[in-house]
Amino acid sequence: MTIQGRFIVVEGLEGAGKTSAILTIQQWLSEHNIKFISTREPGGTALAEQIRTLVKQVQDEKVAPETELLLMYASRVQLIKTVIQPALKQGIWVVGDRHDLSSRAYQGGGRQLDESLINSIRQVVLGDLTPDLTLYLDIDPAIGLQRAQARGELDRIEQEQLAFFQRTRAKYLQIAAAEPNIVTIDAGQSMEQVQQQILNALQQAYQSGSLNPGLCSDV
Amino acid sequence: MTIQGRFIVVEGLEGAGKTSAILTIQQWLSEHNIKFISTREPGGTALAEQIRTLVKQVQDEKVAPETELLLMYASRVQLIKTVIQPALKQGIWVVGDRHDLSSRAYQGGGRQLDESLINSIRQVVLGDLTPDLTLYLDIDPAIGLQRAQARGELDRIEQEQLAFFQRTRAKYLQIAAAEPNIVTIDAGQSMEQVQQQILNALQQAYQSGSLNPGLCSDV
Repeated sequence: MTIQGRFIVVEGLEGAGKTSAILTIQQWLSEHNIKFISTREPGGTALAEQIRTLVKQVQDEKVAPETELLLMYASRVQLIKTVIQPALKQGIWVVGDRHDLSSRAYQGGGRQLDESLINSIRQVVLGDLTPDLTLYLDIDPAIGLQRAQARGELDRIEQEQLAFFQRTRAKYLQIAAAEPNIVTIDAGQSMEQVQQQILNALQQAYQSGSLNPGLCSDV
Repeated sequence: MTIQGRFIVVEGLEGAGKTSAILTIQQWLSEHNIKFISTREPGGTALAEQIRTLVKQVQDEKVAPETELLLMYASRVQLIKTVIQPALKQGIWVVGDRHDLSSRAYQGGGRQLDESLINSIRQVVLGDLTPDLTLYLDIDPAIGLQRAQARGELDRIEQEQLAFFQRTRAKYLQIAAAEPNIVTIDAGQSMEQVQQQILNALQQAYQSGSLNPGLCSDV
């Protein structure tokens, strides 16, 4: 019998260091001989990447917050049904660059969309899928945006005002404080410190059984 | 004070004669000196048209029914917020080539998605917007598809099997029978007969007040 794979997600504002964090996780998985795939959201399938382009590119018209929300979840459900669920079922782990928590923070916090409205759509899209571990990299948006800007041109959402990202961060922190599978890491620390805390979180989740230590021998 | 415009929708399977029906309605509105705009779904704004392309073009991957549903409603909410609602508020009537009923019939009937799931999303997207009159053109899908095929290449959804369209039609009929603002017209009749029934339905709704006869003098 194949044991279900595990789903680890990295979350945070632009410039929080998600890419480095994902590399750390991928290396840790390789060292533990765990088979995995990596995804990103929005995107991750050919169709979902087209949705990503639509939602991120600057549009001539104002994009309604509800449109943005539905496009994010259209991309997400396509990725879940065609990539994430099949992988997990085969015992393959999934490392996600963003997932559902991003929409709750950006569209719920940043765009101030009603929470019950978001939850209606989440029920449709997520079913019983929940990440086994989410690492939320917390960064002051002023610093994060500076880093993101240094990397190149900002997309439609990245062009928002600072207040938008402050609301997004506040929502991230609020949800992370309430949900036990989300670990908040101070991304303002040195890269070594951040990396160490990621490894600690992985190790702790692994040992406590929430990352299912029985799996390795099965893949 | 501007009296709110009215929202008339034409619905039906491919090849049911929606385009002719819309022409009939447009002509009737012009004769009554009613200011109107016409929309189509999915689509109707620059962004919504891009979503239309995504959802209708043949994809290399299987499109999950939930993805299709969310893309349809993403397009719809963008059209509602940026075109339909502003027009109605200004007293301008809207003639819709498809609207919400299409998703209930195609994704609910054809794709057999759960009704409560669709209703969760409808609540988010529609708010209190309901068409004042919907003309459902009922056609045997075998005949409708033949007509659609004769017009040119079929899109991703039009390429479905006959059973898909039979389920879609059954759902259309079921909803139309239950909701008083939906008038079912037998589209298997001659064009003249169909046209006459459309005019009758418009006149009847107009006289009964559900199309707000007080409006004309106000535009």
